[in-house]
Amino acid sequence: MKKMINSADSFVQDTMEGIIYAYGDKVKLLNGDFRVLLSDYPAKAGKVGIVTAGGSGHLPVFLGYVGSGMLDGCTVGDVFASPAADKMADMIRACDRGSGVLCLYGNYNGDKFNFRMACEEVEFDDIETETVLVRDDVASSPKENADKRRGVAGMVYAFKIAGAAADKMMSLKEVAAVMAKALDNIRSMGVALSPCIVPKAGKPTFSIAEDEIEVGMGIHGEAGIEVRKMMTADEIAETLVTTILKDMPLASGDEVSVMVNGLGSTPMEEQLIVYRKVYQILADMGVKIVMPHIGEYATSMEMAGLSVTIFKLDGELKELLQAPAQTPFYTNANK
Amino acid sequence: MKKMINSADSFVQDTMEGIIYAYGDKVKLLNGDFRVLLSDYPAKAGKVGIVTAGGSGHLPVFLGYVGSGMLDGCTVGDVFASPAADKMADMIRACDRGSGVLCLYGNYNGDKFNFRMACEEVEFDDIETETVLVRDDVASSPKENADKRRGVAGMVYAFKIAGAAADKMMSLKEVAAVMAKALDNIRSMGVALSPCIVPKAGKPTFSIAEDEIEVGMGIHGEAGIEVRKMMTADEIAETLVTTILKDMPLASGDEVSVMVNGLGSTPMEEQLIVYRKVYQILADMGVKIVMPHIGEYATSMEMAGLSVTIFKLDGELKELLQAPAQTPFYTNANK
Repeated sequence: MKKMINSADSFVQDTMEGIIYAYGDKVKLLNGDFRVLLSDYPAKAGKVGIVTAGGSGHLPVFLGYVGSGMLDGCTVGDVFASPAADKMADMIRACDRGSGVLCLYGNYNGDKFNFRMACEEVEFDDIETETVLVRDDVASSPKENADKRRGVAGMVYAFKIAGAAADKMMSLKEVAAVMAKALDNIRSMGVALSPCIVPKAGKPTFSIAEDEIEVGMGIHGEAGIEVRKMMTADEIAETLVTTILKDMPLASGDEVSVMVNGLGSTPMEEQLIVYRKVYQILADMGVKIVMPHIGEYATSMEMAGLSVTIFKLDGELKELLQAPAQTPFYTNANK
Repeated sequence: MKKMINSADSFVQDTMEGIIYAYGDKVKLLNGDFRVLLSDYPAKAGKVGIVTAGGSGHLPVFLGYVGSGMLDGCTVGDVFASPAADKMADMIRACDRGSGVLCLYGNYNGDKFNFRMACEEVEFDDIETETVLVRDDVASSPKENADKRRGVAGMVYAFKIAGAAADKMMSLKEVAAVMAKALDNIRSMGVALSPCIVPKAGKPTFSIAEDEIEVGMGIHGEAGIEVRKMMTADEIAETLVTTILKDMPLASGDEVSVMVNGLGSTPMEEQLIVYRKVYQILADMGVKIVMPHIGEYATSMEMAGLSVTIFKLDGELKELLQAPAQTPFYTNANK
């Protein structure tokens, strides 16, 4: 295991210390707890709180989106493991401004279980919560069982929309409703070319031959749709876009945002080459792309591969997407 | 070779097409030439032009910094190869607003040779040029031969400072002078854990054992100072900072900016863990860090490793560093 770390045990705390040393003017720990990060930007009184949680090992997801116009708080667990319910409850309390808190996170059992306990716990403090699950990965379950799908890079768009909706002083119910609409219009799918190594496990999450590609793999190495012989960038783009469009058809005149998300080891050049073909396919259909996001937004440490996310916009969603946001890892000022 | 590309021959053009499809509202090709990218942001009349050039395979270096407040133009060659002199000359002509053009690039022989020809060529058009070479890599040559050092991630700071100086309507001589001062105060050093693969070569640039690390390696796989057994993140940070500080001493009360630059495959978590120790070493010395840059700023495609750059600031350099800039890959608005 060739990682630039101090020890597997200190991996999460050392990362969080790095974040605080680097961005301590923008984010802060909750009562010195190295697992709970809060925004330190000023927020309007009475704004709905937006929080998330999940396992470590996916930076910038999740911690990197705590700031202004996105998340108010985030708690992380060990690598690929859910944080504890009591940390979630502490975070929810810290992010409530009397208008309630939206818990917005990927559809994973550990996170669901713990967030449910946390939400029950804060009910005793008369804190209202709403839960919205991100289930954007079309490869993880067929459409008839779409509620079983995993949340992947589409959650970055979800954080952006929720933060902007809360900044517009929507009520908790209104934020939850706009998130339901947004998530109905977000679909993702990825490919993996190499595994990552969980520090405490010390060995690759899966194995794959030098001439093969995993189509539809999840960000923790969950099984995809099929293992295929390595494809060209254009074939990869076609496979991902075609599968997404079967699930969420688009028509000429539609506006979308597209995210090409590198999973960790995939060079920016390759992400752009895949984006090139995604653009061409959508342009040929008469679909216009707004605010493309190309880069590493949701990773699996050193996994090679990428995902494509398509976010179909209407007037309201476009305005929320374009609203200013600033976090240590995401700035769309002046875009 | 497991790359998401269409062919080794189309790698550079496909990448550039991706850039234009994604960011065509911010940057443009020079006369449809897929090797020359120009800023499409408005610029003040008479502003000095800032241009660079170099091999492909280092995104966001170099193309990613074309925009507002950084580079006016950039021409790229094949992967790790210098672009042709006539492309450089075309670019210089396109970026001259009557006040001359600063050619700011890394100290590599091919780029030097071609830029020298290009500058001679545009003299016939009465375009004034100045050349400033970036030589920040302390591992590439001892201090007594510092003029032989390579340019690495420190060139991103150089682009930022030059763009800000030009935006302040400094003359060409003044921009060149402030760049000389800035570069006197910028030092970098890196480590590599794995090689990258040049698409046309199809094989790794070097080999390294599973338990070894290359200390001081260049961004094209140039030999470093030594091959060592794998180190902890803290040991890596100490080695890099100690070597840099021997070359450029710092004292209590100094202000610096620090860049921890991932070379391609190194997770953000590991970059932050190394930053954590760099911060602690400098904090213990009484040195204050301003505007840390942590992420992938200058890569070698899928190479694993990172570099640390320290940029010692004075009042003028700090103001130039903090001036707004916006390019497809770099935004410091509101920082």
